[in-house]
Amino acid sequence: MTRFALTVEFDGRPFMGWQRQAHGPSVQQAIEDAAHLVTGERAIVHAAGRTDAGVHGLGMRAHLDIAREITPFRLMEALNARLRPHPVAILDCVAVPGDWHARFTCRARHYEYRIVNRRAPLTWEKGLAWRLANPLDTDAMCAAAQHLVGLHDFTTFRSVHCQSASPVKTLDRLDVACDADRVVIRASARSFLHHQVRSMVGCLALVGQGRWSAADLCAALDAKDRARLGLNAPPDGLFFVRADYP
Amino acid sequence: MTRFALTVEFDGRPFMGWQRQAHGPSVQQAIEDAAHLVTGERAIVHAAGRTDAGVHGLGMRAHLDIAREITPFRLMEALNARLRPHPVAILDCVAVPGDWHARFTCRARHYEYRIVNRRAPLTWEKGLAWRLANPLDTDAMCAAAQHLVGLHDFTTFRSVHCQSASPVKTLDRLDVACDADRVVIRASARSFLHHQVRSMVGCLALVGQGRWSAADLCAALDAKDRARLGLNAPPDGLFFVRADYP
Repeated sequence: MTRFALTVEFDGRPFMGWQRQAHGPSVQQAIEDAAHLVTGERAIVHAAGRTDAGVHGLGMRAHLDIAREITPFRLMEALNARLRPHPVAILDCVAVPGDWHARFTCRARHYEYRIVNRRAPLTWEKGLAWRLANPLDTDAMCAAAQHLVGLHDFTTFRSVHCQSASPVKTLDRLDVACDADRVVIRASARSFLHHQVRSMVGCLALVGQGRWSAADLCAALDAKDRARLGLNAPPDGLFFVRADYP
Repeated sequence: MTRFALTVEFDGRPFMGWQRQAHGPSVQQAIEDAAHLVTGERAIVHAAGRTDAGVHGLGMRAHLDIAREITPFRLMEALNARLRPHPVAILDCVAVPGDWHARFTCRARHYEYRIVNRRAPLTWEKGLAWRLANPLDTDAMCAAAQHLVGLHDFTTFRSVHCQSASPVKTLDRLDVACDADRVVIRASARSFLHHQVRSMVGCLALVGQGRWSAADLCAALDAKDRARLGLNAPPDGLFFVRADYP
């Protein structure tokens, strides 16, 4: 049995999310089905994170165990051939020790959220960014975001469906960068709660639009109350960028 | 009658190209139909360039004449509302003098061609870039490209369907930039021949793969013979970026 670590890129638009679902297509199922076609084995694919429906992956990490003798390069090529026409691609594949785990060994996760700040609808980026028509004060967003960085109880920014044992997490980074009408928010942490990035982005958008002050954001955080969430951003603009391992 | 200059973004994937066609959808038709719904008038939309099927626009310029009294902002908003669900958006709209012409007043056109240099298939960028699996020597591409800059007879790089009076054009810029597995080729000229950018990119790809030398590229140019073209790049990666006016 060899454990293979995969780096996966995917377009989240046609999927119900990463995790296998009874009621619709998932990225996990696409890769597991491709692996079955390649090896004849029914391997389970474990990922660094379980993304929501419509969320994209640039460098998701995952692993699976294969009994058949196959090189990492051949496995990658065969998976990519069998993944068509799904918009899922294996960018890298390496053999790892049997105790390496895409989820449990992971030390940091990095997300990026893309906003297009303009009145006109999106064209080729539809489903790949969140369009916000009202002008955003990105300096105010960036300053307010720093209040969320650090160790906090993120209950306000957590989905009611979140299965995490604790709402207390350390947010390592929450940056807001602006280039013309493009706004990119980058978030890094050891782990995130369900909907945490989208909920933080939604509230930062309220700050950028002048509807919330930084103090409103802090009050929402301190309330530790999901009902105090200002806005949950749509999945469209969210990309799982990278996972770090020791 | 007021002439309005539009800045248009579009996703070229569902269209037969910019120009109205009897046999399929076009960007021109989408905008003309939207304008008809807004004004009740049958205005013709003239563009800075006629892009091929599958080619995209980031900042195409176009104009149309409207008799009805309407402000540029209202026209832009109404066109965007009526353009749905087509992936075409009016980014800007201004009133211009009646002798301003999107095509004939244009002094420079700027294209960008996006290549993803990796083995894995494209996912969310499918149709928005050209994937090339073999490693590209972008320094060699950049050096070779400079032989095409300047005043030349570009017959080799011109479609047999090109309607331009002369194959002699001045290419002002042909840059090759590389960032990880992304290669972007930027081309600027007062005007281009039909398929010129795609033909130049296709031959530069041969240089990048080591299948052509810079001397091969020069020989193809000097031959002034379409049969000597190495490769015509697919439309997927081509974006009309900007048009300049006095």
